[in-house]
Amino acid sequence: MLETVRARKVPTRQEIEKYLKDMSNWGRWGDKGGAGAVNLITPEKTLAATKLVKKGRTVSLSFPLPVVPTLENSQPVQFYMKRLPWIDGGGAALDYQGIFCHGFSVTHIDALCHVWDRNGSWDGTNPDDNLTFDGGKYGTVDAWKDGIVTRGVLLDIPKLRGKPCVTLDTPVHGWELEDAARKQGVKVGPGDAVFVYCGREEYAATNDGLYATPPAPYPGLHASCLPFIRENDLAVFSGDMEDAAPNEYGLAFTIHAIIFAFGVAMLDNVSLKRLARVCQEEGRYEFMLTANPLFLEGGTGTALNPVAVF
Amino acid sequence: MLETVRARKVPTRQEIEKYLKDMSNWGRWGDKGGAGAVNLITPEKTLAATKLVKKGRTVSLSFPLPVVPTLENSQPVQFYMKRLPWIDGGGAALDYQGIFCHGFSVTHIDALCHVWDRNGSWDGTNPDDNLTFDGGKYGTVDAWKDGIVTRGVLLDIPKLRGKPCVTLDTPVHGWELEDAARKQGVKVGPGDAVFVYCGREEYAATNDGLYATPPAPYPGLHASCLPFIRENDLAVFSGDMEDAAPNEYGLAFTIHAIIFAFGVAMLDNVSLKRLARVCQEEGRYEFMLTANPLFLEGGTGTALNPVAVF
Amino acid sequence: MLETVRARKVPTRQEIEKYLKDMSNWGRWGDKGGAGAVNLITPEKTLAATKLVKKGRTVSLSFPLPVVPTLENSQPVQFYMKRLPWIDGGGAALDYQGIFCHGFSVTHIDALCHVWDRNGSWDGTNPDDNLTFDGGKYGTVDAWKDGIVTRGVLLDIPKLRGKPCVTLDTPVHGWELEDAARKQGVKVGPGDAVFVYCGREEYAATNDGLYATPPAPYPGLHASCLPFIRENDLAVFSGDMEDAAPNEYGLAFTIHAIIFAFGVAMLDNVSLKRLARVCQEEGRYEFMLTANPLFLEGGTGTALNPVAVF
Amino acid sequence: MLETVRARKVPTRQEIEKYLKDMSNWGRWGDKGGAGAVNLITPEKTLAATKLVKKGRTVSLSFPLPVVPTLENSQPVQFYMKRLPWIDGGGAALDYQGIFCHGFSVTHIDALCHVWDRNGSWDGTNPDDNLTFDGGKYGTVDAWKDGIVTRGVLLDIPKLRGKPCVTLDTPVHGWELEDAARKQGVKVGPGDAVFVYCGREEYAATNDGLYATPPAPYPGLHASCLPFIRENDLAVFSGDMEDAAPNEYGLAFTIHAIIFAFGVAMLDNVSLKRLARVCQEEGRYEFMLTANPLFLEGGTGTALNPVAVF
Repeated sequence: MLETVRARKVPTRQEIEKYLKDMSNWGRWGDKGGAGAVNLITPEKTLAATKLVKKGRTVSLSFPLPVVPTLENSQPVQFYMKRLPWIDGGGAALDYQGIFCHGFSVTHIDALCHVWDRNGSWDGTNPDDNLTFDGGKYGTVDAWKDGIVTRGVLLDIPKLRGKPCVTLDTPVHGWELEDAARKQGVKVGPGDAVFVYCGREEYAATNDGLYATPPAPYPGLHASCLPFIRENDLAVFSGDMEDAAPNEYGLAFTIHAIIFAFGVAMLDNVSLKRLARVCQEEGRYEFMLTANPLFLEGGTGTALNPVAVF
Repeated sequence: MLETVRARKVPTRQEIEKYLKDMSNWGRWGDKGGAGAVNLITPEKTLAATKLVKKGRTVSLSFPLPVVPTLENSQPVQFYMKRLPWIDGGGAALDYQGIFCHGFSVTHIDALCHVWDRNGSWDGTNPDDNLTFDGGKYGTVDAWKDGIVTRGVLLDIPKLRGKPCVTLDTPVHGWELEDAARKQGVKVGPGDAVFVYCGREEYAATNDGLYATPPAPYPGLHASCLPFIRENDLAVFSGDMEDAAPNEYGLAFTIHAIIFAFGVAMLDNVSLKRLARVCQEEGRYEFMLTANPLFLEGGTGTALNPVAVF
Repeated sequence: MLETVRARKVPTRQEIEKYLKDMSNWGRWGDKGGAGAVNLITPEKTLAATKLVKKGRTVSLSFPLPVVPTLENSQPVQFYMKRLPWIDGGGAALDYQGIFCHGFSVTHIDALCHVWDRNGSWDGTNPDDNLTFDGGKYGTVDAWKDGIVTRGVLLDIPKLRGKPCVTLDTPVHGWELEDAARKQGVKVGPGDAVFVYCGREEYAATNDGLYATPPAPYPGLHASCLPFIRENDLAVFSGDMEDAAPNEYGLAFTIHAIIFAFGVAMLDNVSLKRLARVCQEEGRYEFMLTANPLFLEGGTGTALNPVAVF
Repeated sequence: MLETVRARKVPTRQEIEKYLKDMSNWGRWGDKGGAGAVNLITPEKTLAATKLVKKGRTVSLSFPLPVVPTLENSQPVQFYMKRLPWIDGGGAALDYQGIFCHGFSVTHIDALCHVWDRNGSWDGTNPDDNLTFDGGKYGTVDAWKDGIVTRGVLLDIPKLRGKPCVTLDTPVHGWELEDAARKQGVKVGPGDAVFVYCGREEYAATNDGLYATPPAPYPGLHASCLPFIRENDLAVFSGDMEDAAPNEYGLAFTIHAIIFAFGVAMLDNVSLKRLARVCQEEGRYEFMLTANPLFLEGGTGTALNPVAVF
């Protein structure tokens, strides 16, 4: 692990850059690299995840698709209705859904081609080559077309801290993820999908009902979380808050660097408040996660509805 | 059961109309009616479904989102790319996805408000009241926001018939569903999701690569399948072909009548060829199904990626 | 004229309501009513307008289509590119333009079905009957499909007042329109298109570059302008600022009431700064206006590019 | 002129290629090149055009925006309605218009960056450099933001030939444009906008109501028309049919080559049947044309409503 973080200290920019380079997963999965760390979700891992289900209780981790413009959500989902008459007095209602999934409002998955830094995009690709007017070529969302069924783990930061939510002044640090896991009595490991509950709704209640109103700052996760994600070989990582912004390092991305450096699938803008409550009720912080991206060839991500099953 | 169908005969229009009326599920689930027959997927049913998983093998039932206009697909998915520069030499690729899910090409789920006949829409609602410019009020897709995890069963008609595909002249009749289940050694029951494989791709290969090129005719399922669906209390019903069209009855809808009469969730335009092959390989026709509609309040359906887990 | 306004006083709500009722144009144009006051642009009027052209100098009154979300512009124009290879080494660039024209940013024309108050919509129609999922039936933008070529007149309020722009505290009153016309030496009359320059860009420069950041207040035109519009029988009315908001009357609409009460076409979000400069340079405040709405059957308005010709 | 065409013979591929090269307008308008041949519409030309108006009669050259998918029109205009309640019992109707203007159905203008051949795009630009995810850089539709007001001329081929329409076997040849002008008693010249009426609606009546149902063939204009366009220094060229397809030359484009070789603005899918009738009634084939593209920075073209004024 990054020694600085192990010592519960905030790393320097140089340390982070070195870490991203030394721990890079580029090339790790050979010709299956397009799926990145989701390769860690083996059939055995999926099978084991199904055995975590004890009751059959399902919980959506999706916010409603945001159809109304807000300061947080400058490109709301377009939702328009149609109605068709049909024979014999029948009829049909139809609708159009225009989704620009990235940003701070739509619950979505990020494909591995979504972001990059000056060293390039996932697995050593060059965005200039990889991106066309018809979509990306490599590391696109269809690499995960057969769905993601794996073990999910919730880490509850408000519970750890005894505070309602993460704030601008108190980003989540890497050692807190370890503390939360320990306190909750849960271990994380390869192929897991980890969700970090930050109290987004509680924070929003103090900010006109919104989490992030561009431009920065927004509260969220600190770059010091990177070793936790990589060294536990997570396949999926998610929080109800995103990378704390702006980052003091001037790096292109902090947490989102796990996409291009480690090949980890990120779920953005998940709704975790109810999940945290259910974990509390059920007395456990692990569950079967089912997260099925839409099958869009070349896509940089899609809206989806991740569901936890207890 | 409809006596005519039990006798392996094609019913009359009057018989079908009487059947839909007598066997209607309107009112059956009280104030939980908005979710319709998905109420039959109890936590126990979900739990039991997870126990069907023996290997952790996942199979998508989704076609790629169709982005190119074809004769089958007059409103293809709009897929447009954007690229944003970012600080420190980084960048992001983003895309827009405009989806009109109904029709013959996008793999999607139909909400219960989607279709109706002259007697009204699901649970006795009136489409004139139920549908607004901002979406439906009742029987909308968000009733299923917590996802669908249940037992899935594949019925393989080409295998039953020893023919590559269902054709215009040979719609699937209700007694064939029973025959297929018996031959495959599988029983269906309450809360199940049944998928009827008709050999869509094989048929398309004889029709310029397309399944349905409006207007009718299209091959598919015959109205005589209705009793099988209702009397087995299926929660979800699906085929890789839709209602055989035109129907000889002049009814507004035949198989799609299960939406407004019985409250059954339909998955349209699923891809079953690979699933049929995997069932054959695995030697079993049941699996855990995970089908998570997007969480769109008021929606008449959404694209989704149903995944079978063996 | 409304006596209060003639006396250069702000009218009461009751006076405005009475005025809208007494001076209503409902029924005035019989079976040609769908085009409203644009009926006043007779061929003779159009011919006369062409004679105003002395130099052939053209000036667009359109802002660029706003493609970037801002606080003013929550539903920016969607602008996405495509590129197609072609035979023999050729190719084509194409793009998609998704326009939600109403609001505060897109230069557009309002159809007569666009707004209404509790007494109904234009010409006595009922919005409940007039509006369908496929568009409006009456008073829609296609009533003007043959284009609008008429005399245009600019009224320059900053010039009148000797101030850079209209502000929240200083809405434009009706008697100022008369004063501006008199000072500029121009008379307005039936069938004219009048543009009221308020200094939108100058105001925006004091407000983070934006004119209107919902919710209200926004600066603009006061209800006392209504008699000027109706008694001069204008066919088209426009300002670079809209109805001053909120209105102190609690009326549904103030200036926009000319749509449903008088049948006048409104052009919203026009760019008049350059036009004002050109008028000054040319030493005259009248010109030929050409304003051609897109031919959209049932539309509530469309983006367009009005052009003044000197 | 191309000698072959002067001799009323069909040129060879080599002759056409040489012609396009020899008569290229690349560089002709220096730093005003982005507007191409529209530079030929000087203020004097615009002024003269206004003097052609004798009656004030206006005629739209636009088809209705096509909102229903057809075989001709695989990407119809998206037209969706919204309705908003307002204070004091008022309300508003709004709509969304999603337009993909290129193709065979939407009346639109082509920007100079729209098409290219293996020698490059207009004025020597390279499409690889010129086209970005945010639009084109040069030769884009906003070069014409101040609108096009010029002399319009209709050439009536069915009238010339005494046949109802151009057909697959009878493309329009260049010498026929001269013949039509002569027969109609009209001369064309620099800065003119020429419209070639081919009888699209009459042809469509023989083809299920459609003009062009991809893939080729479609009837239209032959490559031999190129000299007529270039040597008369037209600014705008248009037909109700497009380049006859496929072309026997294997060239990337025939008539559309005027975009990248000569910098001429093309109006595609114009409706000329009514215009032809009005010309006949008025006894003249020239008029004032007003054609105002939407002001879209970087656009490859826009829908518009060209209007002829007599």
